[in-house]
Amino acid sequence: MAAQPLRVALLGAGVVGSQVARLLYEQSEELGRRIGAPVVLVGAGVRDLQRARGIGIPPQLLTDDLAGLVSRSDVDIVVELIGGVEPARTLLLSALEAGTSVVTANKALLAQYGAELHAAAEASGADLYYEASVAGAIPLLRPLRESMAGDNVRRVLGIVNGTTNYILSQMDETGASFAEALAEAQALGYAEADPSADVDGLDAAAKAAILAGLAFHTRVRLDDVSCEGIRGVSAEDVAAARAMDHVVKLLAICERTSTGGVSVRVHPAMVPRHHPLAGVRDAYNAVFVESEAAGQLMFYGRGAGGTPTASAVLGDIVAVGRNRVSGARGPRASAYAALEIVGLDEAVTRYYLALDVADKAGVLAVVATTFARHDVSIETLRQEGRGDDASLVVVTHRSTDGALRAVVDELRGLDVVRAVASTLRVEGE
Amino acid sequence: MAAQPLRVALLGAGVVGSQVARLLYEQSEELGRRIGAPVVLVGAGVRDLQRARGIGIPPQLLTDDLAGLVSRSDVDIVVELIGGVEPARTLLLSALEAGTSVVTANKALLAQYGAELHAAAEASGADLYYEASVAGAIPLLRPLRESMAGDNVRRVLGIVNGTTNYILSQMDETGASFAEALAEAQALGYAEADPSADVDGLDAAAKAAILAGLAFHTRVRLDDVSCEGIRGVSAEDVAAARAMDHVVKLLAICERTSTGGVSVRVHPAMVPRHHPLAGVRDAYNAVFVESEAAGQLMFYGRGAGGTPTASAVLGDIVAVGRNRVSGARGPRASAYAALEIVGLDEAVTRYYLALDVADKAGVLAVVATTFARHDVSIETLRQEGRGDDASLVVVTHRSTDGALRAVVDELRGLDVVRAVASTLRVEGE
Repeated sequence: MAAQPLRVALLGAGVVGSQVARLLYEQSEELGRRIGAPVVLVGAGVRDLQRARGIGIPPQLLTDDLAGLVSRSDVDIVVELIGGVEPARTLLLSALEAGTSVVTANKALLAQYGAELHAAAEASGADLYYEASVAGAIPLLRPLRESMAGDNVRRVLGIVNGTTNYILSQMDETGASFAEALAEAQALGYAEADPSADVDGLDAAAKAAILAGLAFHTRVRLDDVSCEGIRGVSAEDVAAARAMDHVVKLLAICERTSTGGVSVRVHPAMVPRHHPLAGVRDAYNAVFVESEAAGQLMFYGRGAGGTPTASAVLGDIVAVGRNRVSGARGPRASAYAALEIVGLDEAVTRYYLALDVADKAGVLAVVATTFARHDVSIETLRQEGRGDDASLVVVTHRSTDGALRAVVDELRGLDVVRAVASTLRVEGE
Repeated sequence: MAAQPLRVALLGAGVVGSQVARLLYEQSEELGRRIGAPVVLVGAGVRDLQRARGIGIPPQLLTDDLAGLVSRSDVDIVVELIGGVEPARTLLLSALEAGTSVVTANKALLAQYGAELHAAAEASGADLYYEASVAGAIPLLRPLRESMAGDNVRRVLGIVNGTTNYILSQMDETGASFAEALAEAQALGYAEADPSADVDGLDAAAKAAILAGLAFHTRVRLDDVSCEGIRGVSAEDVAAARAMDHVVKLLAICERTSTGGVSVRVHPAMVPRHHPLAGVRDAYNAVFVESEAAGQLMFYGRGAGGTPTASAVLGDIVAVGRNRVSGARGPRASAYAALEIVGLDEAVTRYYLALDVADKAGVLAVVATTFARHDVSIETLRQEGRGDDASLVVVTHRSTDGALRAVVDELRGLDVVRAVASTLRVEGE
């Protein structure tokens, strides 16, 4: 092992950072043999020096001067685990511009400034790896960008947020309301006190942007992603899905459209119970990929947590180290395609609708005419009378989301429709 | 795209090779942009020139002089899809020795001569990729050898043979016997006329050797793999598994032992129905990985078929092309660990046993004493009387396979035991 050591600067020593530091020490011999050179932690930048003591990083390595740490000439690789856009963006750009390689788990930064980071890495010849940014421990980005580089991905359906998957799994298994399941997730530490980033789909949206970019060799930014969270999913919706042998999941959907563009969106959807994604329970993540040659693939595992995420970060550190030893560089981002991003209106999906209607002659005709007027074709329709009222459950064939929403709006205005009790998209056929 | 074209020589134009050729032509523009250089098929070596006409490869590219094709100085990469040990071994060694990179799907060759091929690649600086050799289209080897390079894999449980998984799925779903399900698989083209390579576990054993080597950074050869196929799995075994809420799968198992060694084996086993592998039906493959930091991961997809396998081959071709454009080399094989291979006797597993015993006092004591004498602890025991006979179903706790087999042998010799009707290992707890 004559090679120069790989000198690592760690930014952030929280849930993930502290595990990365621990494993760097505990596994240092194994890692060194896999890299072909020793790996050494030369500094750890933290916000609060006081709080960072006692997590196992030697005190003399700790610093709160993050910019100073990043610009040290004896650092080969900056591992960024502080999250959020700033100061991470400024720190990583300065590292990359100086030719220092970067490993990061920062989905928000990549979803907003991925192009800038990639350009800086390209210009200086530094490596930029971010396997941990999507679906935590699951090796997903490397397969997408390397193993599938000879194939054409058509669609990615991902359960990429463990908090919402836990909540929806609980609602499905116990019949709990959203509020009850959220409270339980918070009690167990699966959800934050302020759960908006998870339950409003923002976390999943950032991951969807990263996935779509890699899957389709194009640039997708967070702003391009249509996003709807799970606050509106009711116990009744979940029960209705169950009655139809479906389960409600929050999906990150990236798909090529028939017009050659890309639709990238996050929303809850009913998924058939026989679909591989339906069995992904609790806080697990999974990403289902449909491609032209390979067909259907699924990647399953833990999407969050200190140690699982650290596994992905360490894999990237080993990759940078191996590249350094062999004088190589990691694969470049391939974003030549410049595909058009299609808005939610033009995305193609199916709807489940539950309507409360008057139970009298002619209602069906009026409702059916409304669907027909927007060229939306009905797959199944089930009517149940209950006194004066009736309940009407409709599942449509595939149509644009715009047309489907226009149908819903128009149904709401009809005299015979007392209420649109529920609408949910249906995916995964 | 100023870079020199990547010149590909294809060996074999059968089910997979013809699809690789087709996609190389159809996707040539996309592939060129991803590689950063055009990719060109410069020759296709086939055994029978007559048969190879009409599969879409220009006739002037076809040759039956495989050695001549491999040694051409204008070939950058040899893609080997003929299978079997010879002449593939000689051809690929001569390519690698000359510095020509190799992409292969040849599991038999890798499982027997992997070390030799890697050494030749290492010596000349050529790339050697073989993603398609295990689990066809599923990106699995690259994640194992790169994404998980910073983690310690403890166990790999794989459904890596689609034919046997189809047969076992049919037996589970329809109650068919092995012979009936095999006949159906043959009628559908899932099984060969001579099905031994699949049903006797040999195909899975080669894949297990490759998986274990990558997972544990050590060398494992086909000879190191204990192998038992599914011919002995009866409709009664499958029904018994079902009654216990389990399903029978042919598993490739690679695991670290408590003594620091490695157990690599292929055999049918009962898997709990809630385990992610249990839901892998029909001809699909899946590989379940347990590692120290990442926890549980699963990779799922099509394990065979021309187009899915071609997807993995093309991904490797793109990887070699990108390396060439950037002057890099792919990651080396990391096999420093030199772990001891542990025989089946020392592998730790659990047994399900069904015994036909005399229904009289003292039988249980005799049977229980036999288990105790070999230090095998019983987890559950269920007795059902039926006239003079009784049926005794035992599931053990974890013990060595040697001790478990010794128990079975001794039970067979007992007067009170009329027959050991069935034994199956139980995995995936």
